[in-house]
Amino acid sequence: MKVGIVGTGVMGYPMAENLLRAGFEVHVWNRTPQKARPLLEQGARWAQTPRELASRVDIVGVMLANHEVTRAVFHGEDGLLAGLKEGVWVVDHGTNPPAWAREAHREVTLRGAQYVDVPVLGSRPQAEARALVLLAGGDPETLAPLLPYFQAIGKHTIYTGVLGQGCLLKLNLNLMIALVNAALAEGFAMARQFGLDPAWFVEALKESALASPYIAIKGDKLLAGDFSEQFGLRLMTKDLRLIIEEALAHRFPLVLGAAAFGLYQRMENAGLGGEDVIAVVRAWDQNLPGSS
Amino acid sequence: MKVGIVGTGVMGYPMAENLLRAGFEVHVWNRTPQKARPLLEQGARWAQTPRELASRVDIVGVMLANHEVTRAVFHGEDGLLAGLKEGVWVVDHGTNPPAWAREAHREVTLRGAQYVDVPVLGSRPQAEARALVLLAGGDPETLAPLLPYFQAIGKHTIYTGVLGQGCLLKLNLNLMIALVNAALAEGFAMARQFGLDPAWFVEALKESALASPYIAIKGDKLLAGDFSEQFGLRLMTKDLRLIIEEALAHRFPLVLGAAAFGLYQRMENAGLGGEDVIAVVRAWDQNLPGSS
Amino acid sequence: MKVGIVGTGVMGYPMAENLLRAGFEVHVWNRTPQKARPLLEQGARWAQTPRELASRVDIVGVMLANHEVTRAVFHGEDGLLAGLKEGVWVVDHGTNPPAWAREAHREVTLRGAQYVDVPVLGSRPQAEARALVLLAGGDPETLAPLLPYFQAIGKHTIYTGVLGQGCLLKLNLNLMIALVNAALAEGFAMARQFGLDPAWFVEALKESALASPYIAIKGDKLLAGDFSEQFGLRLMTKDLRLIIEEALAHRFPLVLGAAAFGLYQRMENAGLGGEDVIAVVRAWDQNLPGSS
Amino acid sequence: MKVGIVGTGVMGYPMAENLLRAGFEVHVWNRTPQKARPLLEQGARWAQTPRELASRVDIVGVMLANHEVTRAVFHGEDGLLAGLKEGVWVVDHGTNPPAWAREAHREVTLRGAQYVDVPVLGSRPQAEARALVLLAGGDPETLAPLLPYFQAIGKHTIYTGVLGQGCLLKLNLNLMIALVNAALAEGFAMARQFGLDPAWFVEALKESALASPYIAIKGDKLLAGDFSEQFGLRLMTKDLRLIIEEALAHRFPLVLGAAAFGLYQRMENAGLGGEDVIAVVRAWDQNLPGSS
Repeated sequence: MKVGIVGTGVMGYPMAENLLRAGFEVHVWNRTPQKARPLLEQGARWAQTPRELASRVDIVGVMLANHEVTRAVFHGEDGLLAGLKEGVWVVDHGTNPPAWAREAHREVTLRGAQYVDVPVLGSRPQAEARALVLLAGGDPETLAPLLPYFQAIGKHTIYTGVLGQGCLLKLNLNLMIALVNAALAEGFAMARQFGLDPAWFVEALKESALASPYIAIKGDKLLAGDFSEQFGLRLMTKDLRLIIEEALAHRFPLVLGAAAFGLYQRMENAGLGGEDVIAVVRAWDQNLPGSS
Repeated sequence: MKVGIVGTGVMGYPMAENLLRAGFEVHVWNRTPQKARPLLEQGARWAQTPRELASRVDIVGVMLANHEVTRAVFHGEDGLLAGLKEGVWVVDHGTNPPAWAREAHREVTLRGAQYVDVPVLGSRPQAEARALVLLAGGDPETLAPLLPYFQAIGKHTIYTGVLGQGCLLKLNLNLMIALVNAALAEGFAMARQFGLDPAWFVEALKESALASPYIAIKGDKLLAGDFSEQFGLRLMTKDLRLIIEEALAHRFPLVLGAAAFGLYQRMENAGLGGEDVIAVVRAWDQNLPGSS
Repeated sequence: MKVGIVGTGVMGYPMAENLLRAGFEVHVWNRTPQKARPLLEQGARWAQTPRELASRVDIVGVMLANHEVTRAVFHGEDGLLAGLKEGVWVVDHGTNPPAWAREAHREVTLRGAQYVDVPVLGSRPQAEARALVLLAGGDPETLAPLLPYFQAIGKHTIYTGVLGQGCLLKLNLNLMIALVNAALAEGFAMARQFGLDPAWFVEALKESALASPYIAIKGDKLLAGDFSEQFGLRLMTKDLRLIIEEALAHRFPLVLGAAAFGLYQRMENAGLGGEDVIAVVRAWDQNLPGSS
Repeated sequence: MKVGIVGTGVMGYPMAENLLRAGFEVHVWNRTPQKARPLLEQGARWAQTPRELASRVDIVGVMLANHEVTRAVFHGEDGLLAGLKEGVWVVDHGTNPPAWAREAHREVTLRGAQYVDVPVLGSRPQAEARALVLLAGGDPETLAPLLPYFQAIGKHTIYTGVLGQGCLLKLNLNLMIALVNAALAEGFAMARQFGLDPAWFVEALKESALASPYIAIKGDKLLAGDFSEQFGLRLMTKDLRLIIEEALAHRFPLVLGAAAFGLYQRMENAGLGGEDVIAVVRAWDQNLPGSS
């Protein structure tokens, strides 16, 4: 079985590696070819364009930054759509609005190919460990041909049964991350302002019923003052914009989500977009970075 | 070594049991004597009044509903203070404002006895399993005589070194619970409004980096529509009031905490104070309980 | 000079009347013809379709519920666009997103005609009294031909100079109304919960530096428990959605606006969309309408 | 009739002047005597201590910064309480918590004198123009002896009938000021971020139904970038703390008030406490004062 990965960045790269290990013939394309080079040494084959990649494989996995970039890669003379043959599957792993899934589905099915939204839960370590959770906008029967592919990259698949609901479920989970992350930052900042040693706060959290891998990792980053990017603040702000737009459309009154968005947007405006999401803790600092 | 437990309710009862198992001579007092009876069959001794209890033991553990109740049990002819002898330790496990710890410390040291705030993390199951986390408002040297007592009831002690900081750290952790709980409710309600099966939402959370014992337990309760009390909504509202008062005093600008308080207070006003904290999800229902 | 009014509802009707009084030849079209009948008795001429109206006049004033309705009236065989002749002005008074103004401008200029967004401040009484404030998305020179028309319907025109900025300025002002209205409701509800006679609260406000026509009118409605529609809650919720979308697009972190939207959306969900905006006060009631 | 004013600052000074003009014999005391000197030239008599002042007059008007300062002036050897004779009225104009009014009432009535809370609406210009609104914590019959005094300093009195409710009503009105002021700042900042000329925004507001003296004055300050103190940001933050404490005690779920407090507290923390309340607009600036 031949698979292609369009976008071999932070997430796409380890996914391609796992597909190679699982014995697939793997084709790759990336805007910046250098990033894909080590994959070629492991046996992957380079495609000059998304079109060429699509024309060679049975499954095209797409892992790009956002739906605007994805749309650009789909269209045009060298675009993915131009290379699609009947029966090919396009599996979109991006965190996108469900309206994009419907638009992409229309375009892909016009070419006789098939499309499904399958965003993933997890970041690079999970991708490397084949421990992603896949949120599929389809049902197990229809997506049966994708099972070996899913098993090669993830540990668990949730089938929502409906096109676009993979996207919605992903946005729902990202709201949870945005809120837990902001809560952790608020609690951490409050502990400091209360004159408590923040190390006690993190230690108590890790011993409590709230203990989770996420809280352990970000608690340690807070203590170390290490804001290096794991999940970039500007990506979270982008996802929150999508979440708010869906909430508006569904008449859902966000409360914590609305308050949290203000924190993230403010910190992005303050120049912290390239730091890790946990840099939102700076919202409680009296003086922002760059000030005396 | 002789210890006493004032207040043998949801938390105090299993703590007394563990002290008995650890070989302490255990004395108990409770406003409602029946609740303490099974402890007597296990070897505990009944005290007619807090004063009598205090006069018989080396360590008095206090586990009462709030600081107003605790103050009432301290004072009066039969009160705890009246029974204190020099050198006795009063260990206060309540979730109280730090100002109470300072007031209680003054009263207790006036009698030549010693006082420390040691709120606990965990609810009944952790209390039963000797798995509480103790947040001590003192340092390990000063509190060395209490070590066997701590080991009999908990799994881990964090020493803040300063009177009242046990209370502050506990309030900080309860803010985290209030926020994670409200975030879970908001995400759950949004999933439903988005037309997603809430079971997928809970499943995805459990598979994600956010997975924690708390989220697993409350996620299941949400799915079951089971709002029976584990941690009562009105207790959380009470704790949030203490947190907000400390935040005001420390000039800390709560953001998520302020938004979350509105949800809890509104649901308490709607008559849900006696249900579990997760009943805050009702804040997103279009019609409140009791409406057609 | 010949002018037409498309949409003779709450606002369009009195605007047409004032144009008649000012001596214009006035043509009208409305989806529900009965509503326009009294205007015909005052001398207005009926057009069977938006197309017919557009073909007869020099200026087309458009006053419709929202941009989706407006788009529908523009297009189609009998649509406004189909009747446009070179040199005609289309003056759009709706509260619309600026993206609609750009889309409409494109369509209109393709036909050789001219388009400008001119939303209005004021409700029916101001429309009747020729006291509207016009927020024009153009400059005085370009819009000079419209001056007599503007003077016939309003008391003051603000020229923003740029297409679509009339819309943005209107959204900005509607945010202010949403916030002042919600603030009034919150203060009123708090006074009641504090055991104060709400009449004192309203009286004090009217005597204070905050006194405004808006606060006087809505304060009296609150006291009377009169939630009959002046500005419908569902229209405000719609406008807030547009405001939030623009804020997202401009990376502006709303704080009060985000909190207020939750109140309005919740009350719309509770079935109060058809009542006046001041019905947002029900958000603080312990039991919602329809409950026992 | 002899009256005394304790505290001849921004508000007390013009009140004393108006009492002189109305023909009262006026006695004054102020912590900083120089500030009272021009009053002595107009005929006022200096008292060396609050006690001396209280012993000489029929009515003591108190206008101090907060209730802690007021309590300090009441007590002690030279304190106001020590000078009170039977039948004297103490009229407290401070913006205080109602609990202080009850405490002060107890202390004053113990000396056979009488106490009432009468906070005022208005700032220096209203005080000078005898245009204050008085919010009296009593009824017209009981307070009849104070009528000439009230008429000399204000234009209108609202009688709440109950001790402490003058304070509550004042806090309610200050919440409204806090919210309208923050709303104005949010709208102004949004206009700027939308690329609108803020002058249009202020002009449109002044022409709208929201037009009020407050909005006109603060809108002009915003346009001028003039943050010189009229009502200090730190005083508003103090009042908001009192409001939140009363809201907590009355189980009232603040929504906008909670969001607004975060803005003011954050700006006080950023060093803007000594500027005017309208400096809260800086909360939306990307870089805080002092940053490059």
